[in-house]
Amino acid sequence: MLQFWYEFASTYSYVAAMRVEKECARAGVTLEYRPFLLGPIFQELLGIKDSPFNLQPARGRYMWRDLERLCQKHGLPWLRPSVFPRPSVLAARVALAAGSAIAPVTRAIFAANFADDQDISDPAVLRRLVESAGADGEGVLARAQTPEVKDRLRANTAEARRIGVFGAPDFLVGGELFFGQDRLEDAIAWAKRT
Amino acid sequence: MLQFWYEFASTYSYVAAMRVEKECARAGVTLEYRPFLLGPIFQELLGIKDSPFNLQPARGRYMWRDLERLCQKHGLPWLRPSVFPRPSVLAARVALAAGSAIAPVTRAIFAANFADDQDISDPAVLRRLVESAGADGEGVLARAQTPEVKDRLRANTAEARRIGVFGAPDFLVGGELFFGQDRLEDAIAWAKRT
Repeated sequence: MLQFWYEFASTYSYVAAMRVEKECARAGVTLEYRPFLLGPIFQELLGIKDSPFNLQPARGRYMWRDLERLCQKHGLPWLRPSVFPRPSVLAARVALAAGSAIAPVTRAIFAANFADDQDISDPAVLRRLVESAGADGEGVLARAQTPEVKDRLRANTAEARRIGVFGAPDFLVGGELFFGQDRLEDAIAWAKRT
Repeated sequence: MLQFWYEFASTYSYVAAMRVEKECARAGVTLEYRPFLLGPIFQELLGIKDSPFNLQPARGRYMWRDLERLCQKHGLPWLRPSVFPRPSVLAARVALAAGSAIAPVTRAIFAANFADDQDISDPAVLRRLVESAGADGEGVLARAQTPEVKDRLRANTAEARRIGVFGAPDFLVGGELFFGQDRLEDAIAWAKRT
Protein backbone atom coordinates (compact mmCIF):
# COMPACT_ATOMS: atom_id res chain seq x y z
CA MET A 1 0.00 0.00 0.00
CA LEU A 2 1.25 3.44 -0.97
CA GLN A 3 0.04 6.65 0.66
CA PHE A 4 0.16 9.72 -1.57
CA TRP A 5 0.61 12.90 0.50
CA TYR A 6 -0.09 16.08 -1.41
CA GLU A 7 -0.83 19.79 -1.19
CA PHE A 8 -3.06 21.47 -3.79
CA ALA A 9 -0.86 24.58 -3.99
CA SER A 10 2.24 22.51 -4.78
CA THR A 11 3.42 22.38 -8.36
CA TYR A 12 5.29 19.10 -7.99
CA SER A 13 2.21 17.61 -6.28
CA TYR A 14 0.33 18.33 -9.50
CA VAL A 15 2.72 16.20 -11.55
CA ALA A 16 2.56 13.43 -8.95
CA ALA A 17 -1.25 13.53 -8.78
CA MET A 18 -1.54 13.10 -12.53
CA ARG A 19 0.86 10.11 -12.52
CA VAL A 20 0.28 8.22 -9.27
CA GLU A 21 -2.95 6.37 -10.08
CA LYS A 22 -1.72 4.91 -13.36
CA GLU A 23 1.71 3.95 -12.03
CA CYS A 24 0.26 2.25 -8.94
CA ALA A 25 -2.36 0.41 -11.00
CA ARG A 26 0.33 -0.81 -13.40
CA ALA A 27 2.38 -2.11 -10.47
CA GLY A 28 -0.60 -3.60 -8.63
CA VAL A 29 -0.01 -1.35 -5.62
CA THR A 30 -3.05 -0.03 -3.72
CA LEU A 31 -3.17 3.70 -3.25
CA GLU A 32 -4.47 5.99 -0.53
CA TYR A 33 -4.96 9.75 -1.08
CA ARG A 34 -3.82 11.94 1.83
CA PRO A 35 -4.26 15.67 1.18
CA PHE A 36 -2.65 17.91 3.80
CA LEU A 37 -1.61 21.53 4.27
CA LEU A 38 2.02 22.44 3.76
CA GLY A 39 1.56 26.03 5.01
CA PRO A 40 1.43 25.17 8.74
CA ILE A 41 4.43 22.83 8.31
CA PHE A 42 6.51 25.52 6.59
CA GLN A 43 5.51 27.94 9.35
CA GLU A 44 6.50 25.50 12.08
CA LEU A 45 9.71 24.17 10.51
CA LEU A 46 10.99 27.24 8.69
CA GLY A 47 9.12 30.15 10.22
CA ILE A 48 7.95 31.31 6.79
CA LYS A 49 4.49 32.29 5.55
CA ASP A 50 5.13 32.09 1.81
CA SER A 51 6.42 29.41 -0.55
CA PRO A 52 10.21 28.86 -0.49
CA PHE A 53 9.97 29.18 -4.28
CA ASN A 54 8.85 32.80 -3.83
CA LEU A 55 11.26 33.55 -1.01
CA GLN A 56 14.26 32.03 -2.84
CA PRO A 57 14.21 33.46 -6.39
CA ALA A 58 16.94 31.14 -7.78
CA ARG A 59 15.03 28.12 -6.55
CA GLY A 60 11.79 29.58 -7.88
CA ARG A 61 13.18 30.29 -11.34
CA TYR A 62 14.45 26.72 -11.56
CA MET A 63 11.15 25.25 -10.39
CA TRP A 64 9.05 27.05 -13.02
CA ARG A 65 11.31 25.90 -15.83
CA ASP A 66 11.52 22.40 -14.38
CA LEU A 67 7.74 22.15 -14.29
CA GLU A 68 7.51 22.97 -18.00
CA ARG A 69 10.04 20.23 -18.75
CA LEU A 70 8.40 17.68 -16.44
CA CYS A 71 4.94 18.27 -17.90
CA GLN A 72 6.35 17.91 -21.39
CA LYS A 73 8.09 14.68 -20.36
CA HIS A 74 4.93 13.20 -18.87
CA GLY A 75 2.52 14.56 -21.48
CA LEU A 76 0.67 16.78 -19.02
CA PRO A 77 -0.93 20.14 -19.78
CA TRP A 78 0.74 23.06 -18.01
CA LEU A 79 -0.09 26.72 -17.53
CA ARG A 80 1.80 28.68 -14.93
CA PRO A 81 -0.80 29.90 -12.43
CA SER A 82 -1.22 33.67 -12.13
CA VAL A 83 -1.40 33.29 -8.32
CA PHE A 84 1.14 31.17 -6.45
CA PRO A 85 0.72 29.60 -4.03
CA ARG A 86 -3.08 29.51 -4.21
CA PRO A 87 -4.92 29.17 -0.89
CA SER A 88 -5.65 25.44 -0.70
CA VAL A 89 -7.57 24.89 2.55
CA LEU A 90 -11.01 24.62 0.99
CA ALA A 91 -9.70 22.51 -1.90
CA ALA A 92 -8.16 20.02 0.56
CA ARG A 93 -11.40 19.87 2.54
CA VAL A 94 -13.36 19.30 -0.66
CA ALA A 95 -11.07 16.41 -1.62
CA LEU A 96 -11.60 14.80 1.79
CA ALA A 97 -15.35 15.39 1.58
CA ALA A 98 -15.48 13.72 -1.84
CA GLY A 99 -15.16 10.28 -0.26
CA SER A 100 -14.85 7.57 -2.89
CA ALA A 101 -14.48 10.26 -5.58
CA ILE A 102 -11.31 11.66 -4.03
CA ALA A 103 -9.07 10.52 -6.92
CA PRO A 104 -10.93 12.20 -9.82
CA VAL A 105 -11.75 15.23 -7.67
CA THR A 106 -8.06 15.57 -6.74
CA ARG A 107 -7.01 15.46 -10.39
CA ALA A 108 -9.73 17.95 -11.40
CA ILE A 109 -8.60 20.44 -8.74
CA PHE A 110 -4.91 20.11 -9.64
CA ALA A 111 -5.64 20.51 -13.35
CA ALA A 112 -7.73 23.61 -12.62
CA ASN A 113 -4.84 25.20 -10.70
CA PHE A 114 -1.94 24.20 -12.96
CA ALA A 115 -3.42 23.68 -16.42
CA ASP A 116 -6.32 26.17 -16.48
CA ASP A 117 -5.22 28.88 -14.01
CA GLN A 118 -8.52 28.73 -12.14
CA ASP A 119 -9.03 30.02 -8.60
CA ILE A 120 -9.29 26.79 -6.62
CA SER A 121 -10.11 28.72 -3.45
CA ASP A 122 -13.45 29.80 -4.96
CA PRO A 123 -16.36 27.58 -3.78
CA ALA A 124 -18.18 28.01 -7.11
CA VAL A 125 -15.09 26.82 -9.01
CA LEU A 126 -14.68 23.85 -6.67
CA ARG A 127 -18.33 22.91 -7.00
CA ARG A 128 -18.01 22.80 -10.80
CA LEU A 129 -14.82 20.73 -10.49
CA VAL A 130 -16.48 18.20 -8.20
CA GLU A 131 -19.32 17.89 -10.69
CA SER A 132 -16.90 17.51 -13.59
CA ALA A 133 -15.44 14.57 -11.65
CA GLY A 134 -18.88 12.95 -11.53
CA ALA A 135 -19.68 13.67 -7.88
CA ASP A 136 -22.38 15.73 -6.14
CA GLY A 137 -21.05 19.30 -6.13
CA GLU A 138 -23.53 20.77 -3.67
CA GLY A 139 -23.31 17.85 -1.23
CA VAL A 140 -19.51 17.70 -1.28
CA LEU A 141 -19.14 21.47 -0.80
CA ALA A 142 -21.55 21.36 2.13
CA ARG A 143 -19.74 18.39 3.72
CA ALA A 144 -16.37 20.14 3.19
CA GLN A 145 -17.39 22.81 5.70
CA THR A 146 -18.40 20.41 8.48
CA PRO A 147 -16.33 20.15 11.68
CA GLU A 148 -15.71 16.49 10.90
CA VAL A 149 -13.99 17.23 7.59
CA LYS A 150 -12.08 20.20 9.03
CA ASP A 151 -10.83 17.88 11.78
CA ARG A 152 -9.76 15.26 9.26
CA LEU A 153 -7.65 17.81 7.38
CA ARG A 154 -6.06 19.00 10.63
CA ALA A 155 -5.35 15.36 11.54
CA ASN A 156 -3.79 14.70 8.11
CA THR A 157 -1.51 17.70 8.52
CA ALA A 158 -0.50 16.62 12.02
CA GLU A 159 0.19 13.11 10.76
CA ALA A 160 2.25 14.48 7.86
CA ARG A 161 4.39 16.29 10.41
CA ARG A 162 4.68 13.12 12.51
CA ILE A 163 5.89 10.96 9.60
CA GLY A 164 8.58 13.53 8.78
CA VAL A 165 7.07 15.49 5.91
CA PHE A 166 8.85 18.79 5.18
CA GLY A 167 7.68 19.38 1.60
CA ALA A 168 5.30 17.96 -0.99
CA PRO A 169 4.51 15.61 -2.56
CA ASP A 170 5.51 12.53 -0.57
CA PHE A 171 4.90 8.83 -0.80
CA LEU A 172 4.77 6.68 2.34
CA VAL A 173 5.29 2.93 2.01
CA GLY A 174 5.57 0.73 5.09
CA GLY A 175 6.96 3.55 7.20
CA GLU A 176 9.40 4.68 4.49
CA LEU A 177 9.00 8.27 3.32
CA PHE A 178 9.87 9.27 -0.25
CA PHE A 179 9.94 13.01 -0.94
CA GLY A 180 9.37 14.47 -4.38
CA GLN A 181 7.34 13.45 -7.40
CA ASP A 182 10.44 12.01 -9.07
CA ARG A 183 10.67 9.36 -6.32
CA LEU A 184 7.34 7.78 -7.26
CA GLU A 185 9.06 4.91 -9.05
CA ASP A 186 11.33 4.26 -6.02
CA ALA A 187 8.31 4.26 -3.71
CA ILE A 188 6.46 1.81 -5.93
CA ALA A 189 9.50 -0.46 -6.10
CA TRP A 190 9.65 -0.34 -2.29
CA ALA A 191 5.94 -1.27 -2.07
CA LYS A 192 6.43 -4.26 -4.36
CA ARG A 193 9.39 -5.49 -2.31
CA THR A 194 7.57 -5.27 1.04
CA MET B 1 28.02 17.61 -23.67
CA LEU B 2 27.01 17.40 -20.04
CA GLN B 3 28.61 19.49 -17.29
CA PHE B 4 28.60 17.88 -13.86
CA TRP B 5 28.54 20.52 -11.12
CA TYR B 6 29.39 19.17 -7.67
CA GLU B 7 30.44 20.01 -4.14
CA PHE B 8 32.61 17.56 -2.16
CA ALA B 9 30.67 18.12 1.08
CA SER B 10 27.36 17.25 -0.58
CA THR B 11 25.92 13.80 0.05
CA TYR B 12 23.82 13.74 -3.11
CA SER B 13 26.87 14.87 -5.10
CA TYR B 14 28.58 11.67 -3.92
CA VAL B 15 25.88 9.49 -5.46
CA ALA B 16 25.98 11.52 -8.66
CA ALA B 17 29.79 11.37 -8.86
CA MET B 18 29.78 7.59 -8.61
CA ARG B 19 27.15 7.26 -11.37
CA VAL B 20 27.78 10.06 -13.87
CA GLU B 21 30.78 8.64 -15.75
CA LYS B 22 29.21 5.26 -16.46
CA GLU B 23 25.81 6.70 -17.43
CA CYS B 24 27.32 9.29 -19.78
CA ALA B 25 29.62 6.70 -21.36
CA ARG B 26 26.69 4.36 -21.91
CA ALA B 27 24.74 7.17 -23.60
CA GLY B 28 27.70 8.44 -25.62
CA VAL B 29 27.52 11.85 -23.95
CA THR B 30 30.78 13.69 -23.23
CA LEU B 31 31.27 14.83 -19.67
CA GLU B 32 32.94 17.80 -18.03
CA TYR B 33 33.71 17.92 -14.29
CA ARG B 34 32.94 21.26 -12.63
CA PRO B 35 33.66 21.27 -8.87
CA PHE B 36 32.46 24.38 -7.05
CA LEU B 37 31.75 25.59 -3.52
CA LEU B 38 28.18 25.58 -2.28
CA GLY B 39 29.02 27.41 0.96
CA PRO B 40 29.34 30.89 -0.60
CA ILE B 41 26.14 30.30 -2.59
CA PHE B 42 24.18 29.29 0.52
CA GLN B 43 25.56 32.34 2.29
CA GLU B 44 24.57 34.65 -0.53
CA LEU B 45 21.16 33.16 -1.32
CA LEU B 46 20.02 32.04 2.11
CA GLY B 47 22.23 33.91 4.55
CA ILE B 48 23.25 30.65 6.24
CA LYS B 49 26.68 29.33 7.20
CA ASP B 50 25.77 25.68 7.76
CA SER B 51 24.10 22.99 5.66
CA PRO B 52 20.29 23.29 5.37
CA PHE B 53 20.29 19.61 6.39
CA ASN B 54 21.73 20.61 9.77
CA LEU B 55 19.59 23.72 10.14
CA GLN B 56 16.37 21.91 9.21
CA PRO B 57 16.27 18.68 11.27
CA ALA B 58 13.27 17.12 9.48
CA ARG B 59 15.00 17.62 6.15
CA GLY B 60 18.26 16.29 7.58
CA ARG B 61 16.69 13.13 9.03
CA TYR B 62 15.10 12.41 5.68
CA MET B 63 18.34 13.00 3.78
CA TRP B 64 20.39 10.57 5.88
CA ARG B 65 17.84 7.79 5.46
CA ASP B 66 17.45 8.61 1.77
CA LEU B 67 21.20 8.31 1.24
CA GLU B 68 21.22 4.82 2.73
CA ARG B 69 18.44 3.80 0.38
CA LEU B 70 20.01 5.46 -2.68
CA CYS B 71 23.40 3.85 -2.06
CA GLN B 72 21.72 0.46 -1.65
CA LYS B 73 19.79 1.05 -4.90
CA HIS B 74 22.90 1.96 -6.86
CA GLY B 75 25.24 -0.57 -5.20
CA LEU B 76 27.43 2.11 -3.62
CA PRO B 77 29.25 1.83 -0.29
CA TRP B 78 27.96 4.24 2.34
CA LEU B 79 29.14 5.33 5.78
CA ARG B 80 27.60 8.39 7.36
CA PRO B 81 30.46 10.84 7.90
CA SER B 82 31.22 11.79 11.50
CA VAL B 83 31.64 15.42 10.40
CA PHE B 84 29.07 17.09 8.14
CA PRO B 85 29.52 19.14 6.11
CA ARG B 86 33.29 18.62 5.80
CA PRO B 87 35.34 21.65 4.70
CA SER B 88 35.75 21.10 0.98
CA VAL B 89 37.82 24.01 -0.32
CA LEU B 90 41.12 22.13 -0.54
CA ALA B 91 39.43 19.04 -1.96
CA ALA B 92 37.88 21.11 -4.75
CA ARG B 93 41.22 22.76 -5.49
CA VAL B 94 42.88 19.34 -5.60
CA ALA B 95 40.30 18.08 -8.08
CA LEU B 96 40.93 21.08 -10.34
CA ALA B 97 44.69 20.65 -9.98
CA ALA B 98 44.44 16.99 -10.99
CA GLY B 99 43.94 17.94 -14.64
CA SER B 100 43.22 14.90 -16.78
CA ALA B 101 42.90 12.78 -13.60
CA ILE B 102 39.97 14.83 -12.31
CA ALA B 103 37.45 11.99 -12.71
CA PRO B 104 39.23 9.30 -10.65
CA VAL B 105 40.46 11.89 -8.14
CA THR B 106 36.89 13.18 -7.72
CA ARG B 107 35.58 9.67 -7.08
CA ALA B 108 38.40 8.90 -4.64
CA ILE B 109 37.67 12.05 -2.62
CA PHE B 110 33.93 11.43 -2.52
CA ALA B 111 34.41 7.81 -1.47
CA ALA B 112 36.81 8.91 1.29
CA ASN B 113 34.21 11.32 2.68
CA PHE B 114 31.08 9.18 2.33
CA ALA B 115 32.25 5.57 2.36
CA ASP B 116 35.35 5.71 4.61
CA ASP B 117 34.66 8.73 6.87
CA GLN B 118 38.06 10.25 6.15
CA ASP B 119 38.91 13.89 6.70
CA ILE B 120 39.04 15.23 3.15
CA SER B 121 40.26 18.62 4.40
CA ASP B 122 43.56 17.04 5.49
CA PRO B 123 46.35 17.54 2.89
CA ALA B 124 47.95 14.19 3.82
CA VAL B 125 44.65 12.38 3.23
CA LEU B 126 44.15 14.18 -0.09
CA ARG B 127 47.67 13.36 -1.20
CA ARG B 128 47.07 9.64 -0.58
CA LEU B 129 43.74 9.86 -2.44
CA VAL B 130 45.36 11.50 -5.46
CA GLU B 131 47.98 8.76 -5.49
CA SER B 132 45.32 6.05 -5.15
CA ALA B 133 43.76 7.55 -8.29
CA GLY B 134 47.04 7.07 -10.14
CA ALA B 135 48.19 10.70 -10.18
CA ASP B 136 51.16 12.55 -8.68
CA GLY B 137 50.16 13.31 -5.08
CA GLU B 138 52.90 15.80 -4.29
CA GLY B 139 52.61 17.65 -7.59
CA VAL B 140 48.82 17.92 -7.48
CA LEU B 141 48.82 19.10 -3.85
CA ALA B 142 51.41 21.77 -4.68
CA ARG B 143 49.45 22.92 -7.75
CA ALA B 144 46.22 23.01 -5.70
CA GLN B 145 47.64 25.87 -3.64
CA THR B 146 48.63 28.08 -6.57
CA PRO B 147 46.78 31.34 -7.29
CA GLU B 148 45.80 29.97 -10.70
CA VAL B 149 43.92 27.00 -9.22
CA LYS B 150 42.38 29.10 -6.46
CA ASP B 151 41.12 31.49 -9.14
CA ARG B 152 39.68 28.64 -11.18
CA LEU B 153 37.66 27.44 -8.19
CA ARG B 154 36.41 30.97 -7.51
CA ALA B 155 35.46 31.28 -11.19
CA ASN B 156 33.61 27.93 -11.10
CA THR B 157 31.62 29.06 -8.07
CA ALA B 158 30.78 32.39 -9.71
CA GLU B 159 29.70 30.57 -12.86
CA ALA B 160 27.56 28.15 -10.83
CA ARG B 161 25.76 31.15 -9.39
CA ARG B 162 25.36 32.66 -12.86
CA ILE B 163 23.76 29.53 -14.36
CA GLY B 164 21.23 29.42 -11.52
CA VAL B 165 22.73 26.83 -9.15
CA PHE B 166 21.17 26.89 -5.65
CA GLY B 167 22.15 23.38 -4.48
CA ALA B 168 24.21 20.37 -5.55
CA PRO B 169 24.68 18.35 -7.60
CA ASP B 170 23.58 19.82 -10.92
CA PHE B 171 23.85 18.87 -14.56
CA LEU B 172 24.01 21.53 -17.26
CA VAL B 173 23.15 20.58 -20.83
CA GLY B 174 22.89 23.19 -23.56
CA GLY B 175 21.92 25.91 -21.09
CA GLU B 176 19.38 23.68 -19.29
CA LEU B 177 20.01 23.16 -15.59
CA PHE B 178 18.99 19.92 -13.89
CA PHE B 179 19.19 19.93 -10.09
CA GLY B 180 19.60 16.76 -8.05
CA GLN B 181 21.34 13.45 -8.60
CA ASP B 182 18.03 11.81 -9.49
CA ARG B 183 17.76 14.04 -12.57
CA LEU B 184 20.87 12.55 -14.20
CA GLU B 185 18.79 10.43 -16.55
CA ASP B 186 16.69 13.45 -17.60
CA ALA B 187 19.85 15.46 -18.23
CA ILE B 188 21.34 12.69 -20.36
CA ALA B 189 18.11 12.36 -22.34
CA TRP B 190 18.26 16.13 -22.94
CA ALA B 191 21.86 15.85 -24.13
CA LYS B 192 20.96 13.10 -26.59
CA ARG B 193 18.06 15.15 -27.99
CA THR B 194 20.09 18.30 -28.54
